[in-house]
Amino acid sequence: MADKIILTGDRPTGKLHVGHYVGSLRRRVVLQNSGEYKRTMVMIADAQALTDNFDNPEKVRQNIIEVALDYLSVGLDPEKSVLFIQSQIPELTELTFFYSDLVTVARLQRNPTVKNEIKLRNFEADIPVGFFTYPISQAADITAFKATTVPVGEDQLPMIEQTREIVRKFNSIYAPVLVEPEALIPSDAASRRLPGTDGKAKMSKSLGNCIYLSDDADTVAARIKTMYTDPEHLRVSDPGHLEGNTVFTYLEAFSRPEHFERYLPEYASLDELKAHYTRGGLGDVKVKKFLTAVMQEELEPIRKRRKEYERDIPAVYEILKKGSERAREIAAETLHEVKDAMRINYFEDSELIREQAERYRKAAE
Amino acid sequence: MADKIILTGDRPTGKLHVGHYVGSLRRRVVLQNSGEYKRTMVMIADAQALTDNFDNPEKVRQNIIEVALDYLSVGLDPEKSVLFIQSQIPELTELTFFYSDLVTVARLQRNPTVKNEIKLRNFEADIPVGFFTYPISQAADITAFKATTVPVGEDQLPMIEQTREIVRKFNSIYAPVLVEPEALIPSDAASRRLPGTDGKAKMSKSLGNCIYLSDDADTVAARIKTMYTDPEHLRVSDPGHLEGNTVFTYLEAFSRPEHFERYLPEYASLDELKAHYTRGGLGDVKVKKFLTAVMQEELEPIRKRRKEYERDIPAVYEILKKGSERAREIAAETLHEVKDAMRINYFEDSELIREQAERYRKAAE
Repeated sequence: MADKIILTGDRPTGKLHVGHYVGSLRRRVVLQNSGEYKRTMVMIADAQALTDNFDNPEKVRQNIIEVALDYLSVGLDPEKSVLFIQSQIPELTELTFFYSDLVTVARLQRNPTVKNEIKLRNFEADIPVGFFTYPISQAADITAFKATTVPVGEDQLPMIEQTREIVRKFNSIYAPVLVEPEALIPSDAASRRLPGTDGKAKMSKSLGNCIYLSDDADTVAARIKTMYTDPEHLRVSDPGHLEGNTVFTYLEAFSRPEHFERYLPEYASLDELKAHYTRGGLGDVKVKKFLTAVMQEELEPIRKRRKEYERDIPAVYEILKKGSERAREIAAETLHEVKDAMRINYFEDSELIREQAERYRKAAE
Repeated sequence: MADKIILTGDRPTGKLHVGHYVGSLRRRVVLQNSGEYKRTMVMIADAQALTDNFDNPEKVRQNIIEVALDYLSVGLDPEKSVLFIQSQIPELTELTFFYSDLVTVARLQRNPTVKNEIKLRNFEADIPVGFFTYPISQAADITAFKATTVPVGEDQLPMIEQTREIVRKFNSIYAPVLVEPEALIPSDAASRRLPGTDGKAKMSKSLGNCIYLSDDADTVAARIKTMYTDPEHLRVSDPGHLEGNTVFTYLEAFSRPEHFERYLPEYASLDELKAHYTRGGLGDVKVKKFLTAVMQEELEPIRKRRKEYERDIPAVYEILKKGSERAREIAAETLHEVKDAMRINYFEDSELIREQAERYRKAAE
């Protein structure tokens, strides 16, 4: 177990919100603190963000600090995790370059994740090559650190499979130096994708339906106050529906039994609360108040830590710089092994030089 | 004029032959010695060779020394030209990575050179991504050294155009740091593609129809003896045809007026020789003897220099190592400018850090 290595990260295209928290950040901190991993690598994927934001580099540039602040405030600890910036590790582009020879264009075209992302971005014929090939770049990110474990959602499984294929192909052609990673899929339903506060599936800045980790208490309270519930639940006495009811989806993601003791002792559990809501007689206001209490309890320490880090931005950059230096050391080691396996470290290859010199000496005789 | 920079090179997939010599090497030496260029960069493109030889890296690895010996023996001078190995310049892969965002998949698919190369290699659906994207890698090679001048054949013009597009796009989105290169096309017919000794258009090791720069005098003489001429020219008295007559194609590429004085004084020029051949009365043997004399005169000093360098293979690697170090310095400078233009040198960017610190200080007030 002690040899397991995690790689994870985010694209710095905006502040992180509670969807990121529930879907990955929260678990990432648990994994970091579990003692089961030799190393946790957390990457701010600016180079990947540039693949479809190349014409707006300022957006990526400004959001690196936001993502870093979010990381530190949720409890990612630079003493335990290596926090680094992708573009500061040039070794990743070398690996990407060499792996590109091991994947066919047709194989990339079949990747369902890429297909879907292309559709989401309305790229159609105008897909930037860097975007099209990002599964290869991701394989470089994962293998550079010999990650064994990549926490992802189910939609990302084809990406991990692509990496595994590259690893197998490289190891069989050259030498077995790369490690085949495994996806770590959340087992609990509560870690699934959180909807926006308006009930729409996707949280997005432009829809104004996000609760950010950096939002203050009043903003969080206001967002919950207007949160989408059950449009047919007009009077308190009406039976309420749970399906698509965002307040309950959020409660599933955030509430724990002890929250009921503290804030809503008349119910023993979320199941009891749901039952009451369904049969009628429980008003949205009361449920929302409970959700507000639960979320503020969870978010308050995060906000507090964020405020502290915000007071010393240069120190946060220093953390990222140190992390990037560390990440670079590890990646450089792997790259050296990769080039040794490919036997392209010519100048260090005294055997090659000796053999060729010998061959020419013999031919001259 | 003194600011002009040349980039040129070859894929190390075999020894170089007289086709390479006539088509590019000969002129490269002239350019190197012309005094018109600030810098001549000569790249052994091993990484590019690996894009379609990834499963046979040994072939590429063994041929680096052959190409280097060929370079040195034709007169490329490490004091005047920077001879380097592509894979030893990691900055090239970083540039390739960033440029990939500026080119669409559709644009690559339209590239006639790539289309043609894909056909030549029978890749069809199984095109390695690294091969498909090599125009982007080539743009990195050219721009890394701020090359103004790229000597190529006409078939390579679409590659230069691709680089020019990338340069324009980069400069307009980020900042004008890249240089738009120009193709340098041979003006004389003599530098066109030389056929194989069997008259086939393509010289290839597998067809055994090449004369290598490293072939000894006997081998060269033997190859010319069996060279394809005019199959209808059966008796000396028959009129001969020049079209498709390989001996005359080679004479066009190699013979100069002084050769006639020295070896065939009864003719003043190639035109006179051709005229006699066409009207009949001139035998192939005589023409071939002349070609042999001409070619041995040209190839002998090359062979001699090659023998000298072959005696000290480690010294040749040392030349490549020094050249690669120099190339790396230049490429690293360009890469730094590129990253500055993209504003992704975050840790050096005190303005970015100061502004963000200020913004958070104000928000906290």
